[in-house]
Amino acid sequence: VTTEEKLCSATLQSWNQVITRADRKLLPLTDEQLQQPIAPGRNRVIYLLGHLTAVHDRMIPLLRLGDRLHPELDAAFITNPDRTVDLPLSASELKEAWKQVNEVLTKAMSELTPEAWLERHSAISEEDFAKEPHRNRLTILLSRTNHASFHLGQIILTH
Amino acid sequence: VTTEEKLCSATLQSWNQVITRADRKLLPLTDEQLQQPIAPGRNRVIYLLGHLTAVHDRMIPLLRLGDRLHPELDAAFITNPDRTVDLPLSASELKEAWKQVNEVLTKAMSELTPEAWLERHSAISEEDFAKEPHRNRLTILLSRTNHASFHLGQIILTH
Repeated sequence: VTTEEKLCSATLQSWNQVITRADRKLLPLTDEQLQQPIAPGRNRVIYLLGHLTAVHDRMIPLLRLGDRLHPELDAAFITNPDRTVDLPLSASELKEAWKQVNEVLTKAMSELTPEAWLERHSAISEEDFAKEPHRNRLTILLSRTNHASFHLGQIILTH
Repeated sequence: VTTEEKLCSATLQSWNQVITRADRKLLPLTDEQLQQPIAPGRNRVIYLLGHLTAVHDRMIPLLRLGDRLHPELDAAFITNPDRTVDLPLSASELKEAWKQVNEVLTKAMSELTPEAWLERHSAISEEDFAKEPHRNRLTILLSRTNHASFHLGQIILTH
Protein backbone atom coordinates (compact mmCIF):
# COMPACT_ATOMS: atom_id res chain seq x y z
CA VAL A 1 0.00 0.00 0.00
CA THR A 2 1.49 3.33 -1.06
CA THR A 3 1.47 6.62 0.88
CA GLU A 4 -1.07 8.02 -1.60
CA GLU A 5 -3.39 5.07 -1.08
CA LYS A 6 -3.19 5.38 2.70
CA LEU A 7 -4.04 9.08 2.50
CA CYS A 8 -7.08 8.38 0.29
CA SER A 9 -8.26 5.52 2.41
CA ALA A 10 -8.15 7.70 5.56
CA THR A 11 -10.40 10.21 3.79
CA LEU A 12 -12.85 7.52 2.70
CA GLN A 13 -12.81 6.07 6.20
CA SER A 14 -13.79 9.49 7.56
CA TRP A 15 -16.74 9.59 5.12
CA ASN A 16 -17.79 6.06 6.11
CA GLN A 17 -17.65 6.98 9.79
CA VAL A 18 -19.99 9.94 9.33
CA ILE A 19 -22.42 7.87 7.23
CA THR A 20 -22.42 5.11 9.85
CA ARG A 21 -23.19 7.62 12.62
CA ALA A 22 -25.99 9.11 10.54
CA ASP A 23 -27.40 5.62 9.85
CA ARG A 24 -27.43 4.84 13.57
CA LYS A 25 -29.31 8.02 14.38
CA LEU A 26 -31.70 8.19 11.41
CA LEU A 27 -32.71 4.63 10.54
CA PRO A 28 -34.28 3.72 13.92
CA LEU A 29 -36.47 6.88 13.96
CA THR A 30 -40.23 6.39 13.71
CA ASP A 31 -42.29 8.33 11.15
CA GLU A 32 -43.46 10.54 13.99
CA GLN A 33 -39.91 11.23 15.19
CA LEU A 34 -38.92 12.13 11.64
CA GLN A 35 -41.61 14.83 11.68
CA GLN A 36 -39.91 16.61 14.62
CA PRO A 37 -38.11 19.87 13.91
CA ILE A 38 -34.45 20.01 15.00
CA ALA A 39 -35.34 23.18 16.97
CA PRO A 40 -38.58 25.17 17.21
CA GLY A 41 -39.50 26.45 13.75
CA ARG A 42 -36.46 24.87 12.07
CA ASN A 43 -36.12 22.06 9.52
CA ARG A 44 -37.76 18.73 10.31
CA VAL A 45 -35.53 15.66 10.56
CA ILE A 46 -37.25 14.15 7.50
CA TYR A 47 -36.27 17.22 5.49
CA LEU A 48 -32.62 16.81 6.50
CA LEU A 49 -32.76 13.08 5.68
CA GLY A 50 -34.10 13.92 2.21
CA HIS A 51 -31.64 16.79 1.84
CA LEU A 52 -28.62 14.60 2.65
CA THR A 53 -29.93 11.84 0.36
CA ALA A 54 -30.36 14.28 -2.54
CA VAL A 55 -26.94 15.88 -2.00
CA HIS A 56 -25.24 12.48 -1.87
CA ASP A 57 -27.18 11.33 -4.93
CA ARG A 58 -25.86 14.37 -6.80
CA MET A 59 -22.32 13.36 -5.85
CA ILE A 60 -22.57 10.36 -8.22
CA PRO A 61 -22.51 12.45 -11.44
CA LEU A 62 -20.48 15.23 -9.76
CA LEU A 63 -17.67 12.74 -9.12
CA ARG A 64 -18.20 11.33 -12.65
CA LEU A 65 -19.17 7.92 -11.29
CA GLY A 66 -22.40 7.42 -13.23
CA ASP A 67 -26.00 8.61 -13.28
CA ARG A 68 -27.80 9.64 -10.13
CA LEU A 69 -30.58 7.44 -8.76
CA HIS A 70 -33.15 9.88 -7.32
CA PRO A 71 -33.44 13.15 -9.25
CA GLU A 72 -37.03 13.42 -7.99
CA LEU A 73 -35.69 14.50 -4.57
CA ASP A 74 -34.32 17.89 -5.57
CA ALA A 75 -37.54 19.93 -5.65
CA ALA A 76 -38.59 18.89 -2.15
CA PHE A 77 -35.17 18.75 -0.47
CA ILE A 78 -32.75 21.09 -2.23
CA THR A 79 -34.50 23.73 -4.33
CA ASN A 80 -37.24 24.52 -1.81
CA PRO A 81 -37.30 24.97 1.97
CA ASP A 82 -39.00 22.54 4.33
CA ARG A 83 -42.83 22.44 4.50
CA THR A 84 -43.35 24.16 1.11
CA VAL A 85 -43.52 21.14 -1.23
CA ASP A 86 -45.19 17.71 -0.96
CA LEU A 87 -42.58 15.05 -0.26
CA PRO A 88 -42.04 12.68 -3.24
CA LEU A 89 -41.31 9.64 -1.05
CA SER A 90 -42.70 8.20 2.19
CA ALA A 91 -40.48 8.07 5.27
CA SER A 92 -39.63 4.41 4.73
CA GLU A 93 -38.96 4.91 1.01
CA LEU A 94 -36.69 7.79 1.92
CA LYS A 95 -34.72 5.63 4.34
CA GLU A 96 -34.31 3.04 1.57
CA ALA A 97 -33.15 5.72 -0.88
CA TRP A 98 -30.64 7.01 1.71
CA LYS A 99 -29.14 3.55 2.17
CA GLN A 100 -29.12 2.78 -1.56
CA VAL A 101 -27.49 6.07 -2.60
CA ASN A 102 -24.74 5.81 0.01
CA GLU A 103 -24.07 2.19 -0.90
CA VAL A 104 -23.73 2.85 -4.64
CA LEU A 105 -21.67 6.00 -4.06
CA THR A 106 -19.36 4.51 -1.43
CA LYS A 107 -18.67 1.43 -3.55
CA ALA A 108 -17.80 3.51 -6.63
CA MET A 109 -15.59 5.84 -4.57
CA SER A 110 -13.70 2.93 -3.03
CA GLU A 111 -12.48 2.00 -6.53
CA LEU A 112 -10.87 5.35 -7.34
CA THR A 113 -7.07 5.54 -7.43
CA PRO A 114 -5.21 8.45 -5.74
CA GLU A 115 -4.58 10.01 -9.16
CA ALA A 116 -8.31 9.73 -10.00
CA TRP A 117 -9.17 11.52 -6.74
CA LEU A 118 -7.13 14.50 -7.96
CA GLU A 119 -8.96 14.66 -11.29
CA ARG A 120 -11.61 17.31 -11.93
CA HIS A 121 -15.21 17.00 -10.81
CA SER A 122 -17.94 17.40 -13.40
CA ALA A 123 -18.98 20.95 -12.43
CA ILE A 124 -15.73 22.44 -13.74
CA SER A 125 -14.53 22.49 -17.35
CA GLU A 126 -11.17 21.02 -18.32
CA GLU A 127 -10.04 24.52 -19.21
CA ASP A 128 -10.88 26.02 -15.82
CA PHE A 129 -9.53 22.98 -14.00
CA ALA A 130 -6.11 23.59 -15.56
CA LYS A 131 -6.09 26.91 -13.66
CA GLU A 132 -7.83 25.66 -10.47
CA PRO A 133 -6.57 22.11 -9.84
CA HIS A 134 -7.91 22.06 -6.27
CA ARG A 135 -11.42 21.69 -7.72
CA ASN A 136 -11.01 17.94 -7.80
CA ARG A 137 -13.01 14.90 -6.65
CA LEU A 138 -11.28 14.76 -3.27
CA THR A 139 -12.33 18.31 -2.41
CA ILE A 140 -15.94 17.30 -3.09
CA LEU A 141 -15.66 14.26 -0.81
CA LEU A 142 -14.16 16.35 2.01
CA SER A 143 -16.74 19.09 1.72
CA ARG A 144 -19.68 16.64 1.57
CA THR A 145 -18.33 14.79 4.62
CA ASN A 146 -18.31 18.12 6.48
CA HIS A 147 -21.79 18.88 5.16
CA ALA A 148 -23.14 15.58 6.52
CA SER A 149 -21.43 16.21 9.90
CA PHE A 150 -22.94 19.71 9.99
CA HIS A 151 -26.49 18.41 9.61
CA LEU A 152 -25.85 15.40 11.85
CA GLY A 153 -24.99 17.87 14.63
CA GLN A 154 -28.49 19.30 14.12
CA ILE A 155 -30.34 15.99 13.82
CA ILE A 156 -28.74 14.79 17.06
CA LEU A 157 -30.57 17.58 18.94
CA THR A 158 -33.90 15.76 18.58
CA HIS A 159 -34.87 13.09 21.07
CA VAL B 1 4.09 19.19 -6.00
CA THR B 2 3.61 15.42 -5.58
CA THR B 3 0.33 13.49 -5.47
CA GLU B 4 0.84 12.91 -1.72
CA GLU B 5 1.32 16.62 -1.10
CA LYS B 6 -1.81 17.49 -3.08
CA LEU B 7 -3.86 14.98 -1.08
CA CYS B 8 -2.61 16.40 2.24
CA SER B 9 -3.13 19.96 1.17
CA ALA B 10 -6.77 19.21 0.21
CA THR B 11 -7.33 17.85 3.72
CA LEU B 12 -5.75 20.89 5.36
CA GLN B 13 -7.78 23.15 3.09
CA SER B 14 -10.94 21.42 4.30
CA TRP B 15 -9.91 22.10 7.92
CA ASN B 16 -9.14 25.75 7.11
CA GLN B 17 -12.52 26.14 5.44
CA VAL B 18 -14.39 24.91 8.51
CA ILE B 19 -12.31 27.13 10.85
CA THR B 20 -12.97 30.15 8.63
CA ARG B 21 -16.72 29.49 8.66
CA ALA B 22 -16.66 29.10 12.44
CA ASP B 23 -14.68 32.35 12.77
CA ARG B 24 -17.26 34.21 10.67
CA LYS B 25 -20.12 32.96 12.80
CA LEU B 26 -18.52 33.11 16.26
CA LEU B 27 -16.25 36.14 16.35
CA PRO B 28 -18.93 38.79 15.61
CA LEU B 29 -21.26 37.49 18.36
CA THR B 30 -21.87 39.78 21.34
CA ASP B 31 -21.44 38.50 24.92
CA GLU B 32 -25.22 38.30 25.13
CA GLN B 33 -25.52 36.27 21.92
CA LEU B 34 -22.85 33.87 23.21
CA GLN B 35 -25.09 33.19 26.22
CA GLN B 36 -27.87 31.85 23.95
CA PRO B 37 -28.50 28.10 23.93
CA ILE B 38 -28.40 26.46 20.51
CA ALA B 39 -31.89 25.07 21.26
CA PRO B 40 -34.08 25.28 24.38
CA GLY B 41 -32.23 23.64 27.29
CA ARG B 42 -29.19 22.72 25.18
CA ASN B 43 -25.57 23.92 25.27
CA ARG B 44 -24.93 27.64 25.11
CA VAL B 45 -22.87 28.98 22.20
CA ILE B 46 -20.13 30.06 24.62
CA TYR B 47 -19.85 26.47 25.83
CA LEU B 48 -19.38 25.22 22.28
CA LEU B 49 -16.81 27.96 21.58
CA GLY B 50 -14.87 26.87 24.69
CA HIS B 51 -15.36 23.20 23.83
CA LEU B 52 -14.00 23.59 20.31
CA THR B 53 -11.08 25.70 21.60
CA ALA B 54 -10.18 23.07 24.21
CA VAL B 55 -10.46 20.19 21.72
CA HIS B 56 -8.29 22.01 19.17
CA ASP B 57 -5.78 22.94 21.90
CA ARG B 58 -5.50 19.26 22.79
CA MET B 59 -4.71 18.49 19.14
CA ILE B 60 -1.31 20.21 19.57
CA PRO B 61 0.18 17.49 21.82
CA LEU B 62 -2.04 14.79 20.25
CA LEU B 63 -0.44 15.48 16.86
CA ARG B 64 2.96 15.71 18.61
CA LEU B 65 3.37 19.34 17.59
CA GLY B 66 4.27 20.81 20.99
CA ASP B 67 2.65 21.77 24.28
CA ARG B 68 -0.93 22.92 24.47
CA LEU B 69 -1.66 26.55 25.28
CA HIS B 70 -4.84 26.44 27.41
CA PRO B 71 -5.10 23.40 29.70
CA GLU B 72 -7.30 25.49 32.01
CA LEU B 73 -10.20 25.05 29.56
CA ASP B 74 -10.79 21.33 30.08
CA ALA B 75 -12.74 21.38 33.35
CA ALA B 76 -15.29 23.90 32.09
CA PHE B 77 -15.57 22.76 28.47
CA ILE B 78 -14.69 19.06 28.19
CA THR B 79 -14.92 17.23 31.50
CA ASN B 80 -18.15 18.86 32.67
CA PRO B 81 -21.41 19.78 30.95
CA ASP B 82 -22.52 23.36 30.36
CA ARG B 83 -23.70 25.50 33.30
CA THR B 84 -22.06 23.33 35.99
CA VAL B 85 -18.64 25.02 36.32
CA ASP B 86 -17.54 28.70 36.39
CA LEU B 87 -15.95 29.64 33.07
CA PRO B 88 -12.18 30.24 33.38
CA LEU B 89 -12.11 32.98 30.70
CA SER B 90 -14.33 35.88 29.71
CA ALA B 91 -16.09 35.81 26.34
CA SER B 92 -13.50 38.07 24.74
CA GLU B 93 -10.59 36.12 26.23
CA LEU B 94 -12.17 32.96 24.90
CA LYS B 95 -12.39 34.41 21.39
CA GLU B 96 -8.70 35.32 21.62
CA ALA B 97 -7.81 31.79 22.81
CA TRP B 98 -9.83 30.30 19.91
CA LYS B 99 -7.96 32.40 17.36
CA GLN B 100 -4.56 31.78 18.96
CA VAL B 101 -4.99 28.00 19.27
CA ASN B 102 -6.14 27.60 15.67
CA GLU B 103 -3.32 29.81 14.41
CA VAL B 104 -0.57 27.89 16.23
CA LEU B 105 -2.09 24.52 15.32
CA THR B 106 -2.74 25.33 11.66
CA LYS B 107 0.77 26.71 11.17
CA ALA B 108 2.39 23.61 12.71
CA MET B 109 0.15 21.28 10.66
CA SER B 110 1.00 23.09 7.43
CA GLU B 111 4.64 22.04 7.91
CA LEU B 112 4.00 18.29 8.13
CA THR B 113 5.08 16.12 5.20
CA PRO B 114 2.74 13.40 3.80
CA GLU B 115 4.82 10.73 5.55
CA ALA B 116 4.56 12.63 8.84
CA TRP B 117 0.76 12.74 8.48
CA LEU B 118 0.75 8.93 8.43
CA GLU B 119 2.81 8.68 11.63
CA ARG B 120 1.17 7.78 14.94
CA HIS B 121 -0.60 10.30 17.14
CA SER B 122 0.48 10.57 20.78
CA ALA B 123 -2.47 8.65 22.28
CA ILE B 124 -1.28 5.34 20.82
CA SER B 125 1.95 3.49 21.70
CA GLU B 126 4.48 2.57 19.02
CA GLU B 127 3.66 -1.07 19.70
CA ASP B 128 -0.09 -0.69 19.15
CA PHE B 129 0.46 1.58 16.17
CA ALA B 130 2.37 -1.21 14.41
CA LYS B 131 -0.88 -3.21 14.52
CA GLU B 132 -3.28 -0.27 13.89
CA PRO B 133 -1.57 2.06 11.42
CA HIS B 134 -4.78 3.96 10.67
CA ARG B 135 -4.47 5.63 14.09
CA ASN B 136 -2.30 8.34 12.59
CA ARG B 137 -2.19 12.13 12.62
CA LEU B 138 -4.32 12.43 9.47
CA THR B 139 -7.19 10.48 11.03
CA ILE B 140 -7.16 12.96 13.94
CA LEU B 141 -7.30 15.93 11.57
CA LEU B 142 -10.22 14.42 9.62
CA SER B 143 -12.18 13.53 12.74
CA ARG B 144 -11.62 16.95 14.35
CA THR B 145 -12.70 18.68 11.14
CA ASN B 146 -15.94 16.67 11.27
CA HIS B 147 -16.29 17.47 14.97
CA ALA B 148 -16.02 21.20 14.29
CA SER B 149 -18.57 20.91 11.42
CA PHE B 150 -20.92 18.99 13.72
CA HIS B 151 -20.96 21.77 16.34
CA LEU B 152 -20.98 24.52 13.71
CA GLY B 153 -24.25 23.03 12.43
CA GLN B 154 -25.62 23.58 15.95
CA ILE B 155 -24.17 27.06 16.50
CA ILE B 156 -25.67 28.22 13.20
CA LEU B 157 -29.17 27.60 14.62
CA THR B 158 -28.86 30.67 16.87
CA HIS B 159 -29.76 34.07 15.50
